[in-house]
Amino acid sequence: MKQLFEGIITPMITPLIDRMTLDVEGQKKMLDHLINGGVSGVFLMGTTGEGPSLSYRMRRQLIKLTCDYVAGRVPVFVSITDTCIEEALDLAKYSKECGASYIVSALPYYLGLTQDEMVKFFTTLADNIELPLFLYNIPSQTKLMMSVQTVKKLAAHPNIIGMKDSSGNGTYFNTLLAEVKAAYPDFTILVGPDEMLVSTMALGGNGGVNSGSNLFPRLFSELFKAIKADDKARIAKLQKIVMKVSTDVYSVDTSSVSFLKGLKAALYLEGFITDAMCEPLVKADDAVFATIKKNLVGIKQLLKEAI
Amino acid sequence: MKQLFEGIITPMITPLIDRMTLDVEGQKKMLDHLINGGVSGVFLMGTTGEGPSLSYRMRRQLIKLTCDYVAGRVPVFVSITDTCIEEALDLAKYSKECGASYIVSALPYYLGLTQDEMVKFFTTLADNIELPLFLYNIPSQTKLMMSVQTVKKLAAHPNIIGMKDSSGNGTYFNTLLAEVKAAYPDFTILVGPDEMLVSTMALGGNGGVNSGSNLFPRLFSELFKAIKADDKARIAKLQKIVMKVSTDVYSVDTSSVSFLKGLKAALYLEGFITDAMCEPLVKADDAVFATIKKNLVGIKQLLKEAI
Amino acid sequence: MKQLFEGIITPMITPLIDRMTLDVEGQKKMLDHLINGGVSGVFLMGTTGEGPSLSYRMRRQLIKLTCDYVAGRVPVFVSITDTCIEEALDLAKYSKECGASYIVSALPYYLGLTQDEMVKFFTTLADNIELPLFLYNIPSQTKLMMSVQTVKKLAAHPNIIGMKDSSGNGTYFNTLLAEVKAAYPDFTILVGPDEMLVSTMALGGNGGVNSGSNLFPRLFSELFKAIKADDKARIAKLQKIVMKVSTDVYSVDTSSVSFLKGLKAALYLEGFITDAMCEPLVKADDAVFATIKKNLVGIKQLLKEAI
Amino acid sequence: MKQLFEGIITPMITPLIDRMTLDVEGQKKMLDHLINGGVSGVFLMGTTGEGPSLSYRMRRQLIKLTCDYVAGRVPVFVSITDTCIEEALDLAKYSKECGASYIVSALPYYLGLTQDEMVKFFTTLADNIELPLFLYNIPSQTKLMMSVQTVKKLAAHPNIIGMKDSSGNGTYFNTLLAEVKAAYPDFTILVGPDEMLVSTMALGGNGGVNSGSNLFPRLFSELFKAIKADDKARIAKLQKIVMKVSTDVYSVDTSSVSFLKGLKAALYLEGFITDAMCEPLVKADDAVFATIKKNLVGIKQLLKEAI
Repeated sequence: MKQLFEGIITPMITPLIDRMTLDVEGQKKMLDHLINGGVSGVFLMGTTGEGPSLSYRMRRQLIKLTCDYVAGRVPVFVSITDTCIEEALDLAKYSKECGASYIVSALPYYLGLTQDEMVKFFTTLADNIELPLFLYNIPSQTKLMMSVQTVKKLAAHPNIIGMKDSSGNGTYFNTLLAEVKAAYPDFTILVGPDEMLVSTMALGGNGGVNSGSNLFPRLFSELFKAIKADDKARIAKLQKIVMKVSTDVYSVDTSSVSFLKGLKAALYLEGFITDAMCEPLVKADDAVFATIKKNLVGIKQLLKEAI
Repeated sequence: MKQLFEGIITPMITPLIDRMTLDVEGQKKMLDHLINGGVSGVFLMGTTGEGPSLSYRMRRQLIKLTCDYVAGRVPVFVSITDTCIEEALDLAKYSKECGASYIVSALPYYLGLTQDEMVKFFTTLADNIELPLFLYNIPSQTKLMMSVQTVKKLAAHPNIIGMKDSSGNGTYFNTLLAEVKAAYPDFTILVGPDEMLVSTMALGGNGGVNSGSNLFPRLFSELFKAIKADDKARIAKLQKIVMKVSTDVYSVDTSSVSFLKGLKAALYLEGFITDAMCEPLVKADDAVFATIKKNLVGIKQLLKEAI
Repeated sequence: MKQLFEGIITPMITPLIDRMTLDVEGQKKMLDHLINGGVSGVFLMGTTGEGPSLSYRMRRQLIKLTCDYVAGRVPVFVSITDTCIEEALDLAKYSKECGASYIVSALPYYLGLTQDEMVKFFTTLADNIELPLFLYNIPSQTKLMMSVQTVKKLAAHPNIIGMKDSSGNGTYFNTLLAEVKAAYPDFTILVGPDEMLVSTMALGGNGGVNSGSNLFPRLFSELFKAIKADDKARIAKLQKIVMKVSTDVYSVDTSSVSFLKGLKAALYLEGFITDAMCEPLVKADDAVFATIKKNLVGIKQLLKEAI
Repeated sequence: MKQLFEGIITPMITPLIDRMTLDVEGQKKMLDHLINGGVSGVFLMGTTGEGPSLSYRMRRQLIKLTCDYVAGRVPVFVSITDTCIEEALDLAKYSKECGASYIVSALPYYLGLTQDEMVKFFTTLADNIELPLFLYNIPSQTKLMMSVQTVKKLAAHPNIIGMKDSSGNGTYFNTLLAEVKAAYPDFTILVGPDEMLVSTMALGGNGGVNSGSNLFPRLFSELFKAIKADDKARIAKLQKIVMKVSTDVYSVDTSSVSFLKGLKAALYLEGFITDAMCEPLVKADDAVFATIKKNLVGIKQLLKEAI
């Protein structure tokens, strides 16, 4: 039997001084903030973490720093997403040495793959990595969609223990539950978009890897509890705030990664980190910062009333 | 105040003898089947109805026949989706004369539109149609996505009373609820994909326009009731069958409209209609029919146990 | 043997008073302008003609008016592109009665088709239409791409005599030449985008269906002659102006049909037509008109020097 | 003034024993084959070279080996395409140390970029790399399209000397010529797809980075000469063979990278390399190999007659 994982995992932003320099104090501040906020795990170098933009040197520094500083307080998930299998395996090995708990990987994102190649890819990873592996489906970035049958084949592998789906596709997610979860009840299925946490858990999803928990971890950990307790009034109240973050923080900038620019802007405005994105991304412009600053006031008022 | 519409509306397939000849008896049989199955309304000439493939002569015949035969037993929704506003308005006028209850329109689907043009388009329709109007968002066919802000602007129009969203995008649907529904509680929001009925109603969706209710109307009308009653065990049992239809009927053919080819195959196999698609579509091949025939046995066994 | 068609065909814009009223005088003025400008044919109700936005009443009016007014001076091509085969065939029949020369059709553009369905669709048209038929490939609007093998199959039909490719894909066009043209030398292959006229004729294309010839017919008819004469200096000089139109007229507005809004703006500014688009399209804003007005000065100066 | 580069550059496949082991002898054999075939340069680790799939260790090995073995016989181009700027710059530095001549980079291909971010990205590279830089536009893999205005801004940089466009878009390429080349005549513009070499050079393109030259370098170097000499009969004869390779080698496999799988299959069948792809890619199946083997007979017969 696999160990089912339930709860909120934070796909951490990466605090930076500049593209070559990790903001070590920012990372520690963020980790305390998240753990105090009740999240069930932290996830390094995913899409929200600008993982593919970071040098291998910095990726290693980030893994080591995080594992040391967390010191077992919550599990550490590490994304090894890469277009090169060797580099990915190297990073997985290093993660294990540092004490990380789980490995996460999306598909390689340059050359298009067939479904059979996707199965082979993840099988190769799972066979060669000593930590348990989570699949990560994010077609907005990889431009590849794992079919439900592909996930089902992979769920049979003893070392592939779960999946994060960031497709945003409600039909797909529910088909994963009906086809994969029904066949492998101990296979963990987590959702990416914050906005879908409630609706995916309604049918059996196990939780979320939600970017918004970087900013308001307590909002998400409390929402998770409310869902488990089927406390409808509280769910409605908290979901309203989740949607406010979506509208008022994630959707202010107009680029395709507006959620990420908005999120880093908000975390900077709240005093957790610098405002640096990792190049090639450039931070949102001043008008976006000003709007988000204003919007945060309303969100925090709602939060205060709710939590 | 607008009249909120809650329940299951069937986006009817169009029964045909051939591309020029409506299967009148098939339509009557279907209507009785649906009304006896407890659906809350029938919807003509949507995507499932192959609406854009039908001649104007047949569209009129279908509206008249349906309104006459239904005779008020349930409301009749008519899709006027067209690339030409004049033709759309003509059909809306005729629908009213025949006694239809509601008009539904997707966006014109040839020349790309800006969000402002979308607002203007639906405003023109709503200003010139005497029946209440539903918006229909179906980017898979129109290749256009109405932004949430566009919907919000349109929801303020007194004659636009609701929306069907077939985008399949869970984040988008929940943003509609948070932004549009919260501002206009009497604006009806219905979901398209069968697979998302439960998860969208979990946060305030008003029901579904679900293709699968052509085949098993009772399954959907009972599921709707179970959701309203928050009967979790019954929801789980019925949702399982909904997903079986998705996997075992909709996903057997491999074309981009596999759901439609599978659905018509199943309805033919169940004795309701002929197996004719409206050209340019061609019916699924024999192997698909054989697989679906076999699959229906299992689905009907589950249904018998559940309902 | 099929009759090869070589030259420049103008995909005419549709001059309007408003969405319900054809600008009859504008159409006559345009026709004289084009025929005097030396184009080899005029093409009604294509993408540039906003064909799918026009009512059937107006489509018929436009066909009749044009055939009568042209009175054999140049061949008249009519687009019957529709999602409904019956309506398309009706319009083809009427076109023949009015004296049109050729029928053109793109694929139905609502429900996705397989390549086999595309073959069947065009075969049905070709079998039931008395005028010679041109295929029209325009994936930007139909979201369907005819494979080269599909075109090759259709080129064998005695009544399908050519194709207009507006995909913009240079590899695809050259594969059409290598696979279809090589097998059927009497099959006409014309290019859509103005910018590609020279480069596609370099390898055997037969000419163009070029929107810019609405504005400057002489530019295109002279460029065609220069290409046939292999007059490299003149080709370079005229191609430069073609590209100026692309940059300075087609690319000023920012919508997905900016070429069309820019083109109608320029024709209005030049005194040929009103500035009305057919709803749901809305004309470009004042700033776009002002920029194009300014840009036209430069383009006309270059034209004067060249022609 | 920048040094204009004209001719055929081969985007080399990477010969492998397995995903971790370079086929050193295969690489040497390929290099002799290409240089003897008259190509004007060799390009390492592009899309055809499965660059993003190779470990950094192997990338360095490949650069060193190639520069040493080529020993100045032709210029060596190195792709540093990466999602991380630091890694890219490191590789550029190493390339210079090894004696490479030019650096090539596509856009980072994970997080979506705005046009401004693209300008900043390439400016950062060009400012920090000592070798001259070529831009590489390949939206099929990066899912990002550099606008013509973006390229124009970058062409002003003294260290950005040219561009390879693999978009396949004929309108775009000709707009590059009209807008960028016209403003900066010493900016080199090369085309990717083999099928477009003739049609892009017809209007001023400077040559190609053509995958097919891996297999038949002489075909492409001769075609380049024929184009420069405006030898129409010879162009037609050679272009026919280029298209045969496209149809009979590149389009046999059905995956999205069929060209690459077909090319490696053909090179294996011709005795140059092993049949290994770099995982996650898996080689084409036996039926594809058998078809290509048969097809090569006809292509080589044509080649023998032509060259």
